[in-house]
Amino acid sequence: MRNAKAYSVATPTSPFTPTAIPRREPTPHDVEIEILFCGVCHSDLHQARNEWSDLPTAYPCVPGHEIVGRVTRLGTAVAKHKVGDLVGVGCVVDSDGTCPECQGHHEQFCPNGVFTYNSPDKHTGKVTYGGYSESIVVNERFALRVPANLDPAGVAPLLCAGITTWSPLRRQGVTQGKKVGVVGLGGLGHMGVKFARAMGAHVVVFTTSPAKTEDALRLGAHEVVVSRDAAQMKKHTGSFDMILDTVSAVHDLTAYLNLLRREGNLTLVGVPDKPHAVPALALHFGNKSISGSMIGGMQATQEMLDFCGQHGITADVEVIPIQKINEAYERLLKADVKYRFSIDMASLRGQ
Amino acid sequence: MRNAKAYSVATPTSPFTPTAIPRREPTPHDVEIEILFCGVCHSDLHQARNEWSDLPTAYPCVPGHEIVGRVTRLGTAVAKHKVGDLVGVGCVVDSDGTCPECQGHHEQFCPNGVFTYNSPDKHTGKVTYGGYSESIVVNERFALRVPANLDPAGVAPLLCAGITTWSPLRRQGVTQGKKVGVVGLGGLGHMGVKFARAMGAHVVVFTTSPAKTEDALRLGAHEVVVSRDAAQMKKHTGSFDMILDTVSAVHDLTAYLNLLRREGNLTLVGVPDKPHAVPALALHFGNKSISGSMIGGMQATQEMLDFCGQHGITADVEVIPIQKINEAYERLLKADVKYRFSIDMASLRGQ
Repeated sequence: MRNAKAYSVATPTSPFTPTAIPRREPTPHDVEIEILFCGVCHSDLHQARNEWSDLPTAYPCVPGHEIVGRVTRLGTAVAKHKVGDLVGVGCVVDSDGTCPECQGHHEQFCPNGVFTYNSPDKHTGKVTYGGYSESIVVNERFALRVPANLDPAGVAPLLCAGITTWSPLRRQGVTQGKKVGVVGLGGLGHMGVKFARAMGAHVVVFTTSPAKTEDALRLGAHEVVVSRDAAQMKKHTGSFDMILDTVSAVHDLTAYLNLLRREGNLTLVGVPDKPHAVPALALHFGNKSISGSMIGGMQATQEMLDFCGQHGITADVEVIPIQKINEAYERLLKADVKYRFSIDMASLRGQ
Repeated sequence: MRNAKAYSVATPTSPFTPTAIPRREPTPHDVEIEILFCGVCHSDLHQARNEWSDLPTAYPCVPGHEIVGRVTRLGTAVAKHKVGDLVGVGCVVDSDGTCPECQGHHEQFCPNGVFTYNSPDKHTGKVTYGGYSESIVVNERFALRVPANLDPAGVAPLLCAGITTWSPLRRQGVTQGKKVGVVGLGGLGHMGVKFARAMGAHVVVFTTSPAKTEDALRLGAHEVVVSRDAAQMKKHTGSFDMILDTVSAVHDLTAYLNLLRREGNLTLVGVPDKPHAVPALALHFGNKSISGSMIGGMQATQEMLDFCGQHGITADVEVIPIQKINEAYERLLKADVKYRFSIDMASLRGQ
């Protein structure tokens, strides 16, 4: 074990403070990564504050699953990476590799999967610690190649916000000629807009804030609809192939189902704390569907990163030093960020 | 116009009584059909009693959209049928034929579609009258060929209950090797079981009534799960490719979502009067989806009938004379029918 600098919380109500955490020596298939940037996902906040009843938090808690860094050491059997490679690590750091989910390239659903933070850690006997740290050690399968042409600070959020929005767009076959809606323009939504545009779709952003119009168009939307304006909504009735809904609060899904064309799909990626109300008739007329989607497997995440390299796509980030993380959480609660915080880990190494 | 014998209701609370309704002379593309059997769908009851706020009933009302009969007269331009042909008519009797829905073989979603009963009738200036009648006149496109080897009494319900369950099974690609659940064993559910079995799937029936086990197995189910038994349900976690939910009341969908495998689909065909509660997380884990489905277009309905001919499939019916229709409605409300009433129209002609 080596000690690594990190920021952790000690209780659900504590601020982040500097700490040291153990990182294992690389086993044969491990890579050690010097973390350059780590994005700040809303899930980090939920976990740090123990807000998920199904997934209680073990303290101290070190969140962070939008990690970009450089390979610094290799296990003896590593073939996939070499020292100096720029790599990304997302929400999952291990899986059994043998179950149907792993064999189907959906490691995120492996019953023996290990999440990047707050999962039992078989190496340390504690829980996994995430990317609010100067380094991390993961199995090589979970370190993805990052295209060299992209700004690493903006790459970090691709590992969660990026794959979360990319996967359902791909699954629904979004391509040129399709009309795609994106509901909500936050960390997830702004990635959805960039991806759908780059895939060739006609992109419409739905927002409750007319003030976001200009920015939505800058990010790649062709049109912006203020979702509270019934007349604007009605003009789009029955016209969407797919709508990607990134809102993490219960809201009226029927309004969006009505905008889908026959066999259109509404994919939810937000996680409201209460169930949505879904009237069956809104699905029946047009044989429509509502789907959920959870991040993506390693193959899909690599495809997404390669796609970003080809299209020059990164997240719009506000780079912060780790010392500003408590303030960033307060701003996150007010949706006061365009569109993702990315922690520059040089600030941690230098302190 | 000719007068035809029929049974109608005069108000939401009236019983059915004998009446005469006008049927048009066949226009060039029409066929006149002597009705042999008409199935009794729960929608008939809702419409007769004006229970749909979005679709108010015009009185007198003659329901019936599960029609089997023989062609008796042809319009001058009819090429598809000849006198004496056995044909079926379902929920739709006309559409514009030019819109994207019609062009895509989904006439049931045509904005100018005409339902078999309670739709404005451009020929008579009144509303359309359904199959509780000795005859009907429809455009030849909406009269489907009925395989000669099937019992017409059991064919009638195929035109609604059949296509309603066949369409989503086909859309979801049910075939040999797939595991399919059917929730509810009524008029729709018993057809879902027969179709899924004939498509080669492993079929599991979910019911709240253990007493239905024997009949479910007879109809083709491989297994029966009592849905109130949590231990029985748990054994099937993550194992279904598709679940067809035929229940027309709000119930716990999460219990069924948990039984789906990755990218599994839950299709609803029931129409509860309240929205379902859908927790997003139950969709996210496994990238699952919930769909709706509404009957089917003419092409799909013909495919379904041909499939039934090949596999010897009909609905299980209790044949009744039209004079028993009021009693049948009361029994329908108690789900006291295995599994569909089919009215023998000889009883109407003879009276």
